[in-house]
Amino acid sequence: MAWFRNLTKVSSIKSSLKNTHPFPLLASSLTHFSTEANKHNQAPPGLGPTRPNEKPRVVVLGTGWAGCRLMKGLDTNIYDVVCVSPRNHMVFTPLLASTCVGTLEFRSVAEPIGRIQPAISREPGSYFFLSNCTAIDTDNHLVHCQTVTDGVDSLDPWKFKISYDKLVIALGAQPLTFGIHGVEEHAIFLREVYHAQEIRRKLLLNLMLSDMPGISQEEKSRLLHCVVVGGGPTGVEFSGELSDFIMKDVRQRYAHVKDKIHVTLIEANEILSSFDDRLRQYATKQLTKSGVHLVRGIVKDVKAQKLILNDGTEVPYGLLVWSTGVGPSPLVNSLELPKAPGGRIGVDEWLRAPSVQDVFSIGDCSGFLESTGKPTLPALAQVAERQGKYMANLLNKIGKAGGGRANSANGVELGEPFVYRHLGSMATIGRYKALVDLRQSKESKGIALAGFTSWFIWRSAYLTRVISWRNRFYVAINWLTTFVFGRDISRI
Amino acid sequence: MAWFRNLTKVSSIKSSLKNTHPFPLLASSLTHFSTEANKHNQAPPGLGPTRPNEKPRVVVLGTGWAGCRLMKGLDTNIYDVVCVSPRNHMVFTPLLASTCVGTLEFRSVAEPIGRIQPAISREPGSYFFLSNCTAIDTDNHLVHCQTVTDGVDSLDPWKFKISYDKLVIALGAQPLTFGIHGVEEHAIFLREVYHAQEIRRKLLLNLMLSDMPGISQEEKSRLLHCVVVGGGPTGVEFSGELSDFIMKDVRQRYAHVKDKIHVTLIEANEILSSFDDRLRQYATKQLTKSGVHLVRGIVKDVKAQKLILNDGTEVPYGLLVWSTGVGPSPLVNSLELPKAPGGRIGVDEWLRAPSVQDVFSIGDCSGFLESTGKPTLPALAQVAERQGKYMANLLNKIGKAGGGRANSANGVELGEPFVYRHLGSMATIGRYKALVDLRQSKESKGIALAGFTSWFIWRSAYLTRVISWRNRFYVAINWLTTFVFGRDISRI
Repeated sequence: MAWFRNLTKVSSIKSSLKNTHPFPLLASSLTHFSTEANKHNQAPPGLGPTRPNEKPRVVVLGTGWAGCRLMKGLDTNIYDVVCVSPRNHMVFTPLLASTCVGTLEFRSVAEPIGRIQPAISREPGSYFFLSNCTAIDTDNHLVHCQTVTDGVDSLDPWKFKISYDKLVIALGAQPLTFGIHGVEEHAIFLREVYHAQEIRRKLLLNLMLSDMPGISQEEKSRLLHCVVVGGGPTGVEFSGELSDFIMKDVRQRYAHVKDKIHVTLIEANEILSSFDDRLRQYATKQLTKSGVHLVRGIVKDVKAQKLILNDGTEVPYGLLVWSTGVGPSPLVNSLELPKAPGGRIGVDEWLRAPSVQDVFSIGDCSGFLESTGKPTLPALAQVAERQGKYMANLLNKIGKAGGGRANSANGVELGEPFVYRHLGSMATIGRYKALVDLRQSKESKGIALAGFTSWFIWRSAYLTRVISWRNRFYVAINWLTTFVFGRDISRI
Repeated sequence: MAWFRNLTKVSSIKSSLKNTHPFPLLASSLTHFSTEANKHNQAPPGLGPTRPNEKPRVVVLGTGWAGCRLMKGLDTNIYDVVCVSPRNHMVFTPLLASTCVGTLEFRSVAEPIGRIQPAISREPGSYFFLSNCTAIDTDNHLVHCQTVTDGVDSLDPWKFKISYDKLVIALGAQPLTFGIHGVEEHAIFLREVYHAQEIRRKLLLNLMLSDMPGISQEEKSRLLHCVVVGGGPTGVEFSGELSDFIMKDVRQRYAHVKDKIHVTLIEANEILSSFDDRLRQYATKQLTKSGVHLVRGIVKDVKAQKLILNDGTEVPYGLLVWSTGVGPSPLVNSLELPKAPGGRIGVDEWLRAPSVQDVFSIGDCSGFLESTGKPTLPALAQVAERQGKYMANLLNKIGKAGGGRANSANGVELGEPFVYRHLGSMATIGRYKALVDLRQSKESKGIALAGFTSWFIWRSAYLTRVISWRNRFYVAINWLTTFVFGRDISRI
């Protein structure tokens, strides 16, 4: 019946259209444009201080774990939220290593800000600005920004300012290269989705190039040598994923080169140094078993096709992934705020930057001031997420008590200071194996698990933490299809 | 219990590892490398003619619809298959427009060659070479190639040769720009996955930039003006997807700019000129209703931020998508083979290039020679797919009859020539609306459908045609999540 209804529909349309020209005249169809163009309404070059009839404005710098957890928890009935970041999504970093080899898809680990805090794209006073913060003027409650215009060749970036009532600095950290020459140029980090994309493209390209006629055995070995520098959780997880990819997918789909591909993990000290001894040994054994060469060494120099260790050994590579921890970014270094050990932005027990009004800092870019007597917390998603949550509650509390405006929170009772309780560490080491360390600290006793059970716990824990239902669903679907069909190897 | 077993496992590992150094010595762990490096085995600079103890070799140039359908159907017990293409996957082109706005994911429309023809990555004599064909030497049964090394800065492309027993040229076509200045530079085509990725990134960037402080109303209008040139199925489908994205997702997630975004479709003649009159009118009405401005005009010049029409009208744009049909590529133009009308490689009724031995051509790059008296077939996936299937059967037949080797098929009975029967045309025009034209040709009578039913037919038809079960599954999942959660807007 629907079939016939459609046919009738078409006929009736035909008759209704008979007398109208199918193409409206050019002039009339482009009116929206000319009228707009004639207006020349210049928008203000920034957001000025909030007026009494507006909500107070919280400016959040950064879209990592800390900033996003904060925005998710902010009460948008109290505050307008303005977020400044060069990326419009949060990266679910613990699963990023899995995307490099196609176990998971890139979009499954990226969560758009608008889904984390819908007000940001709906409320008239809330905004997301795809920009970098270039400077902070704490005296005038101002943030200086510059737009990100990569991909639009015809547009130069421009500058603007935002006034804040409350400012939360959650700029994160950047990979440490220890001043080693060539790292920035030749190695790939594993912090952003585009890093994972680059690794995937390069890995697949090397696999294909190594099968070409006219290539020497030496060059083939080089192209198929994947080197990971840094034996922390990221390096270990990536090595595990890579060896899993090689054992399961490369053997089937790149049969010509399957015996030539190798993974080497270079670490100056012990791998997974923060984990329990037994877990570390288990990880070492599992990685070795799955073909990862563990090498203890210090990288001295990185060239385009090889790296050089401290003892002079040359290690040719086709793919070099660098994950030796993180340190403060140039912007954080440039800020004229008191610093915590390690160059982080110093904060008190309530995560406030002291000596200035209305400035807070959370996540990897901040650390407790020495005067608090508290230790610097590790640069973990877990810490950032907990601080973001705490900060949301703190700001909501301040706002409810009427201290939301700039310079108005002096009398407000802040309540409990931030206390971090470590819930345990987790790391996968490839095929259905993971480590779970549920001790509170390195010295204390607690539960340490390895193997399939902990792999299952790891997967479940992460699945329930991926923020939106959409991405939870996609991660589960990705895992299922990888299990059933293998990984995707199209190089797009 | 599993919990306890794991704990025991860790303990037993601990003891088993006690006496082994967790890090093997550097020298021993890098042996695979030095031994390889010392061999200096030079691989031959190409694949020479097949020997009697080897299977005859079919070389396929291209991984579009034609080449992939051919490879899928080739009997790998008879032939070795060598494929040369700059991309290692087939793009499911009819769904590409949907990926630009996030209705579908990029990987759901890309099928790796290794999944289409598994022998290519498993059989010792079958290969996929990520390369461009640079020349064809029909006298010596040789193909000249050059590797693709984009993304590996430290590696220069190199050249090699492949001998063929049978050669199938399925190089496809390239977008027509009619020599209009600035098209290549400023417009984006919609033929490859990376085009769709570029469109998506640019669209999301423009949406975000247009919301920045300091932007003029004029600039905002420009950034949010999406112009599509070319009213064929691709242009219409992309316009439809775009207006659907605007109506459904932009209004919710970019509330600040929702009324400023516009889509203009520029076409010199009629949109969907190959479709039934009634369908064309229906499409015109639907597109207009969903906010697409249809403009009849001819583009004269394209600049970075505006294009100029023949009548002098300037049309500022933020995103320009160009889909005005396709023509032969420079390589096809350079081949010294008889040509068909339109510059395509001329073929006889059995899709053979005449006057040379063992060379065939299928898909958009080929056309019937005038001497055959047959019309040039449209550059459609449907035609390419049917020709690929026919070619697989023809080559299998030749191989079974003992004519698989170079210069040995002269006496073989080829059977039925290739006959194309048009099964109908389909195009979506946005939200649950599509056109299905089941007529055999433009002049003949037949069934023409529009609306939800045909949208349903369209979706079902495509879903069953996406080659692997993995991608069928993903396309269905993508459609489901888009329906439930909306489109993904993270700019990665």
